[in-house]
Amino acid sequence: MKRIRLIIAYDGTNYCGWQIQNNGITVEETINKHLTALLGEEIAVIGASRTDSGVHALGNVAVFDTETKIPAEKISFALNQRLPDDIRIQKSEEVAADFHPRFCNSTKTYEYKIWNSQFMRPTERLYSYFVFLPLDIEAMKQAATYLLGERDFISFSSSHTQVLSTIRTIYDIAVEREGNMITIRVSGNGFLYNMVRLIAGTLIKVGLHVYPAEHVKEILEAKTRGLAGPKSPARGLTLIGIDYHEESEKK
Amino acid sequence: MKRIRLIIAYDGTNYCGWQIQNNGITVEETINKHLTALLGEEIAVIGASRTDSGVHALGNVAVFDTETKIPAEKISFALNQRLPDDIRIQKSEEVAADFHPRFCNSTKTYEYKIWNSQFMRPTERLYSYFVFLPLDIEAMKQAATYLLGERDFISFSSSHTQVLSTIRTIYDIAVEREGNMITIRVSGNGFLYNMVRLIAGTLIKVGLHVYPAEHVKEILEAKTRGLAGPKSPARGLTLIGIDYHEESEKK
Repeated sequence: MKRIRLIIAYDGTNYCGWQIQNNGITVEETINKHLTALLGEEIAVIGASRTDSGVHALGNVAVFDTETKIPAEKISFALNQRLPDDIRIQKSEEVAADFHPRFCNSTKTYEYKIWNSQFMRPTERLYSYFVFLPLDIEAMKQAATYLLGERDFISFSSSHTQVLSTIRTIYDIAVEREGNMITIRVSGNGFLYNMVRLIAGTLIKVGLHVYPAEHVKEILEAKTRGLAGPKSPARGLTLIGIDYHEESEKK
Repeated sequence: MKRIRLIIAYDGTNYCGWQIQNNGITVEETINKHLTALLGEEIAVIGASRTDSGVHALGNVAVFDTETKIPAEKISFALNQRLPDDIRIQKSEEVAADFHPRFCNSTKTYEYKIWNSQFMRPTERLYSYFVFLPLDIEAMKQAATYLLGERDFISFSSSHTQVLSTIRTIYDIAVEREGNMITIRVSGNGFLYNMVRLIAGTLIKVGLHVYPAEHVKEILEAKTRGLAGPKSPARGLTLIGIDYHEESEKK
């Protein structure tokens, strides 16, 4: 028996998110189905990030245990032959039997993309959120700085969060413009439900001068749901990757 | 009566190209339908570039004549309200009554994108061509230089071209890599049918060391169809824009 870790990229447009549910096809069930067929064992992967409906990923992580004789690093290629073209395994490797993608310490990085122009560019529409009015990027940058560090982010979470603690640490948050595309890139040790989309929606309001940058500090300190946001659309959000700390690789 | 020019962007994935035909929905007919409904006149636009099925555009050009009282520059906004989200007018403006998007001299710029990596990235799959084996970009750059200037490009055209002359001028051609994405950017005074996709397919063969860079010169000098290519898939191709020279703008 060995434990295999997959790095998974997907275009979330046509999926009801990562986690198996009743009302539509999910990334998790699609991977389970094709892994089960490939390996001839009943496989149920454990995913790191249960991305929402419509959210994309370049590097989500999942693990499963298998008796297969296929070399770990070949599983990616074999599985990609079977998967639909909006899901692609980027890497497969053997990891320690105690590696768990959710319980091991990690840094997750997300990007939220905003197309800020009078006219949407159709070839960007699936992977960014269209904002017509010009955004003040300097104000957004300033507002973002209030979110840095270890904080109680309950103000930036949706109500059906079921977590023991709403304290998270944001290591880095950057707001950058390249042409009409604004990217909010945020790294942290974890994110509450809808946290990045609520941050994006709040920074957009700052960028529109609906309220000043300092108001983000007040929202955070209020520790109350409903002040932040609105939640920006899923299509702008991409899970870039997950780095695991102090990992005990199986050698 | 005034003549209006539209700058049009589209995601070609779901269209059977620009030009009206019987076996599927085209960009041209979609624009005609919504312009006709918007203006209350029967509109049939004249397009600059009849892009193939699956090819994208950031700046195709079309014109039409109208009696409308809607200010020319507002037509873009009004039309975008009606168009499906994979077509977006980027600009609308009045032009001289004798402006013709195909018969006026212009520089057209295309990009062909290649995702060169062991694994496709799903969020790039609709707008680039996946090449698994590593491409030698220096060889591709050298090969591209043979295509510069005024030449007979019949070797780089598909057989059902119906043109009086196969002589075209390429002003600029660049091959660049940024991470896993290779972009071939080419500007010229016109392109024969399938010319950019045949150039891309040929440069890919050079990049794979199927033949040396110098062979591109031999293909060109042979003035024979069938030596170049294969034609690379449509999804990698985007019409970036069209610049009109010495334009007599109506003031």
